[in-house]
Amino acid sequence: MKAVRILTTGGTFDKVHDWRTEGLAFAGAGRSQVPEVLEHGRCTHPVTEQLFQIDSLEMTDTHRALLAQHVASAPEDAIVVTHGTSTMDVTARFLDGKAPEKTVVLTGAMRPYSLFVSDAAFNLGGAVIAAQTLPPGVFAVMNGRVFAAKDVQKDEKLGRFDA
Amino acid sequence: MKAVRILTTGGTFDKVHDWRTEGLAFAGAGRSQVPEVLEHGRCTHPVTEQLFQIDSLEMTDTHRALLAQHVASAPEDAIVVTHGTSTMDVTARFLDGKAPEKTVVLTGAMRPYSLFVSDAAFNLGGAVIAAQTLPPGVFAVMNGRVFAAKDVQKDEKLGRFDA
Amino acid sequence: MKAVRILTTGGTFDKVHDWRTEGLAFAGAGRSQVPEVLEHGRCTHPVTEQLFQIDSLEMTDTHRALLAQHVASAPEDAIVVTHGTSTMDVTARFLDGKAPEKTVVLTGAMRPYSLFVSDAAFNLGGAVIAAQTLPPGVFAVMNGRVFAAKDVQKDEKLGRFDA
Amino acid sequence: MKAVRILTTGGTFDKVHDWRTEGLAFAGAGRSQVPEVLEHGRCTHPVTEQLFQIDSLEMTDTHRALLAQHVASAPEDAIVVTHGTSTMDVTARFLDGKAPEKTVVLTGAMRPYSLFVSDAAFNLGGAVIAAQTLPPGVFAVMNGRVFAAKDVQKDEKLGRFDA
Repeated sequence: MKAVRILTTGGTFDKVHDWRTEGLAFAGAGRSQVPEVLEHGRCTHPVTEQLFQIDSLEMTDTHRALLAQHVASAPEDAIVVTHGTSTMDVTARFLDGKAPEKTVVLTGAMRPYSLFVSDAAFNLGGAVIAAQTLPPGVFAVMNGRVFAAKDVQKDEKLGRFDA
Repeated sequence: MKAVRILTTGGTFDKVHDWRTEGLAFAGAGRSQVPEVLEHGRCTHPVTEQLFQIDSLEMTDTHRALLAQHVASAPEDAIVVTHGTSTMDVTARFLDGKAPEKTVVLTGAMRPYSLFVSDAAFNLGGAVIAAQTLPPGVFAVMNGRVFAAKDVQKDEKLGRFDA
Repeated sequence: MKAVRILTTGGTFDKVHDWRTEGLAFAGAGRSQVPEVLEHGRCTHPVTEQLFQIDSLEMTDTHRALLAQHVASAPEDAIVVTHGTSTMDVTARFLDGKAPEKTVVLTGAMRPYSLFVSDAAFNLGGAVIAAQTLPPGVFAVMNGRVFAAKDVQKDEKLGRFDA
Repeated sequence: MKAVRILTTGGTFDKVHDWRTEGLAFAGAGRSQVPEVLEHGRCTHPVTEQLFQIDSLEMTDTHRALLAQHVASAPEDAIVVTHGTSTMDVTARFLDGKAPEKTVVLTGAMRPYSLFVSDAAFNLGGAVIAAQTLPPGVFAVMNGRVFAAKDVQKDEKLGRFDA
């Protein structure tokens, strides 16, 4: 069994309904939905570490460098990164090669977990397994598929990641 | 990309609330929840084939032989089997070695998908990925873990599969 | 504005999924779902008092006498009683006339609140309003209808209370 | 039993998650959530008529005049109007006195029904009952309370309608 660390960065996965603005927003500090997804999935073994709560459109290379640093310094060799879908491809390629001995798996969601009937749990469940079964490298797991870093590409029209 | 077939056999994963009996039951013929889980997971590529809608406590070796036959004759090399948790270990060991060139991954749930906040999507998402990333053999994927057929064991007290 | 008291007695309304028995059961003492329904309904004014957590098929005249006593001694004139649907008619007729100055409204659900997409919130929302708008007497509110105590009758085939 | 008509105008009640914009939006024409709320509430008797699918901030007096016309010409004497919360007070006072023989009840939600754990079903359940139990006049039903047209006032800070 490989130890798994989940680094959370926000994205649609983590958004909640905000009745004040009548839109979607991130909940307060320290409030990623990932621990709740794991609890509902009865999955107790990963360590979860919240890095950011931001849209992936707001993710800069400064954020990515900090993320890469956390990936590299993590004691685990199996790393899951939750991430917005809009720039998941950019971050995957940024991380590629930076921690060559580790298996890094990005994942996210098209519908927030907190709104129910979401793809978040399906995707995270896949990413946690992929982090343990794939060889070292950087990958994305979305919609039941594994993508190498160079092949990560969101189909904006379909809202899916397809090969 | 590996083509994936999902064979459904019932189990808690597929149960729904029946207001007539005020308990849980299987919905009518052809009504596994798996297609809905895939739809919510925005996962379009697997072929789903419904074999049974039974509790795994009712699963006999006759059922298992029929299941093994479907695994062997499937055109895909990556097979997911949804199954009740109570005898998942028995079926895993029954299937072990019977289709040596295929990757077979059993999965299930402790709370029916139709009751929401369930482990079903998390587990199925993991199993679909495992079927594509693991070598040939028989495995179970539950609660974010992969188990070889011989190691599958439900912790009845915790309601989890832990190593 | 009339002050409202909600007396909870259990019934399907309050059941939760029990993964150990793989069926529905009442959660531990003090755990009616009514406070959560009120919270989600952003309804802060009623006082909630949990009397029993039982199936209405287990409700005896001893239970009903205790319930009648709580209705009579409550400081509020507007009383909602959550109750299983199977013997809601019996309890309504038992209570009828016992606290002639009060408005007593029984309600319940065909699907537990904790299983989502349930009739519980719709029914409770109706009962809380009915308790404030109806004259003294004993009533049931189910499925968007008000029934006088003598007219309460579950349609077992349809799972509804219709006129 | 009074016949009930539900006129829907949109508001937060009817919004759905739109993965394309990653925000909340109205679904396509003819897609109010009200029929689904009634179905889950097992409430079959009201007639539902969709007038608009708009934010209540976009509601003009032209919309309100059309709404008043539908209220007046409806064959039923018990009318429920689903409405955004931001200008519910304005519409209530606009309608007041325009159909003096009818009971008109406005209601809405702070969280869309389609996002689950919402106040929508609780509020609609209350409004359907209020339309049958209140005397002629214009009212709002929110959060377990009845408000006369002149007293309707949203507490923007708390996101509730309190007395």
